Amino acid sequence: MGMTMTQKILAKHAGLSEVRPGQLIMAKLDLVLGNDITSPVAINEFEAAGFDQVFDKSRIAMVMDHFTPNKDIKAATQCKQCRAFAKRFDLDNYYDVGAMGVEHALLPERGLVAPGEAVIGADSHTCTYGALGAFSTGVGSTDMGAAMATGQTWFKVPAAIHVHVTGSFRPYVSGKDAILHLIGRIGVDGALYQSLEFSGPGLKSLTIYDRLTMANMAIEAGAKNGIFAVDDVTRAYVEGRVNRPWEAFEADADAEYVRTVELNLSEIDCTVAYPHLPENAHSAAESGHIAIDQVVIGSCTNGQSADMAAAAAVLKGRHIAKGVRAIVIPATQRVYQECIRQGWMDTFLEAGCAVSTPTCGPCLGGHMGCLAAGERCVSTTNRNFVGRMGHVDSEVYLASPAVAAASAVTGTITHPKEVMDA
Amino acid sequence: MGMTMTQKILAKHAGLSEVRPGQLIMAKLDLVLGNDITSPVAINEFEAAGFDQVFDKSRIAMVMDHFTPNKDIKAATQCKQCRAFAKRFDLDNYYDVGAMGVEHALLPERGLVAPGEAVIGADSHTCTYGALGAFSTGVGSTDMGAAMATGQTWFKVPAAIHVHVTGSFRPYVSGKDAILHLIGRIGVDGALYQSLEFSGPGLKSLTIYDRLTMANMAIEAGAKNGIFAVDDVTRAYVEGRVNRPWEAFEADADAEYVRTVELNLSEIDCTVAYPHLPENAHSAAESGHIAIDQVVIGSCTNGQSADMAAAAAVLKGRHIAKGVRAIVIPATQRVYQECIRQGWMDTFLEAGCAVSTPTCGPCLGGHMGCLAAGERCVSTTNRNFVGRMGHVDSEVYLASPAVAAASAVTGTITHPKEVMDA
Repeated sequence: MGMTMTQKILAKHAGLSEVRPGQLIMAKLDLVLGNDITSPVAINEFEAAGFDQVFDKSRIAMVMDHFTPNKDIKAATQCKQCRAFAKRFDLDNYYDVGAMGVEHALLPERGLVAPGEAVIGADSHTCTYGALGAFSTGVGSTDMGAAMATGQTWFKVPAAIHVHVTGSFRPYVSGKDAILHLIGRIGVDGALYQSLEFSGPGLKSLTIYDRLTMANMAIEAGAKNGIFAVDDVTRAYVEGRVNRPWEAFEADADAEYVRTVELNLSEIDCTVAYPHLPENAHSAAESGHIAIDQVVIGSCTNGQSADMAAAAAVLKGRHIAKGVRAIVIPATQRVYQECIRQGWMDTFLEAGCAVSTPTCGPCLGGHMGCLAAGERCVSTTNRNFVGRMGHVDSEVYLASPAVAAASAVTGTITHPKEVMDA
Repeated sequence: MGMTMTQKILAKHAGLSEVRPGQLIMAKLDLVLGNDITSPVAINEFEAAGFDQVFDKSRIAMVMDHFTPNKDIKAATQCKQCRAFAKRFDLDNYYDVGAMGVEHALLPERGLVAPGEAVIGADSHTCTYGALGAFSTGVGSTDMGAAMATGQTWFKVPAAIHVHVTGSFRPYVSGKDAILHLIGRIGVDGALYQSLEFSGPGLKSLTIYDRLTMANMAIEAGAKNGIFAVDDVTRAYVEGRVNRPWEAFEADADAEYVRTVELNLSEIDCTVAYPHLPENAHSAAESGHIAIDQVVIGSCTNGQSADMAAAAAVLKGRHIAKGVRAIVIPATQRVYQECIRQGWMDTFLEAGCAVSTPTCGPCLGGHMGCLAAGERCVSTTNRNFVGRMGHVDSEVYLASPAVAAASAVTGTITHPKEVMDA
């Protein structure tokens, strides 16, 4: 049997000609990532183990994004620890307040991840970089701590599900709808410790931002990683960002897959995941009875320029409903600047949105938009678990930027076409 | 003996022809203000007292600005309570996330305060509106609760200090320097329960934003209120904002003052208040040995368009120093929009600043920029008490936007001219 994309990347990084599902390997890493929550624990482990050097100061990224700008003294203390570590080892890729962005938007933007690379991050949504044809996955802080010193880590080679993508999106439908639809079909444990490998003729109609959103939420189906076949869309994005050699890995024709899931983009409509699991997928068009209190547009899932554009297109010339708060958070400083250049920022402000500096904040109930008991939020983030964005009696509805923006305008969950055609 | 500006306003609102210092009066109020921290307590008192109506739904302002966008579940719960109260009584001036701003910048901007009016707010910096020739002062939440029902409250008529303003500012010097200089001279209890009444030939060179900053910090000298004589600068600001009749009150020629303080604007240089009291005034030019970790530009003290312009002028074409975080927070949505229109936002972002949606956040160690132990911050806010912006072992240096911006560029406390002439 041949190997999947993921298996090929892992074999290469393990120095092996072949790996099989279930095999334990030690792999070299191209990048080790941590944020302001997970890095302090990793640093403590690094120091407790007696390490006194990092494997490569250009291959460790620390991004202060979760509780920044510092939510409280604890957050300030955590960032201070990271800052000191970054200074001690002269890390090239330490990103603080003002230079920052949400990690999984920032790293691709800055060319820190390339196709065929192996990346671990002490953050579950590290799987995002599969959009570029990289192997990337979330790990614990202890693994991060060890990897900062050794530049390698162990993996159990995952089996894989082939997602065969066909068709193209209808108007207002995007990568977020596709991944919510897919998780709705296979469930939150549908790909447990497996790779979700996306390929097929439908890929050509998926923008890099659609892919980033879809790979980002692979973990919400339980996947070890999500990965897209490298094509011209990938190359166009990577060009000018990555200036080191990289390699695209194609799955073998006889690669072994646990199963194949057909994903026809043409059949997907705007989709909303109801509380309290990402698999609770419903049609946005049939959710108009659900009144909301807040909308959040941003995060590592949907905080890119394409997401801002989609939200702005719906909000342009409109105002959010009375009684609704809408919080827009561009995922990086560059996206923030793009929002200004394109006039989207004016649109957001005229519509009555609050626009924040980049932060993960509200996604994890961290800050910048926590929910009170009984409140409902439509959010472009990735998790709608009980209490995820605040009180245990609050509710999160996951949706695309277009659906979130339309819902902000009406005050109930709304398909964008209802607003645009009104 | 005649009366001061403050005494005349209080007499008018008490329905008396004359009041004397120390006299207890009951005065009608033109506006009652609360924020997301103080309003919930006031609402509880209002309800516990059995009130079931407000005195005037157009004369109560509630501004969600301190821990918003909701920092945590407690903040979310407090805002929810305010929102429900505002809905119950159909308050005209409830300002939530996205429609908001920092209260003391928002109310003047929206024309909610006019010369000669009497305003109380459950926030100590309510004294800001003295810049417009109003009497305004901070009260406790219980007083706010009762005033929401009755439209009046009691005062002990304050004695007054006359601040005789002459001269005009040198380059880079602004109202912030003037008030820090003044507090440096008279001390943080220099005007205890007295009015600081500003008049004299120097007023004509003070912009309305200089005055807002100076009145804002009257409380930092212990004053009951600060107030500026109404002139053409006041009228130009109020025109187009306030569309109800208002009256300017001049102090009588024989008004009784405890003392007169001469404030010659020409003699003031850029001034920094060192920890841990606003009275610890020092020359910015002689503070270059003090290295900093963070800069905050914004707040009810210095978050207006003039403040953003001053900061942008220094940051234009420059970048903040490595290792320094700079957080810029326009005080209202309109100021935020002005920053975009004028290109200041581009300047901030290119300089490496984080720009946040309006919030009081960092000023009170609330969120959006708290300090860790050992960290130093140059801040355009109003208080540098122990632990004000975070850890008890952090330090806050109060300064103007120009000084804060210059300090961000160099990484040490810096006079703007050093940066501009470099």
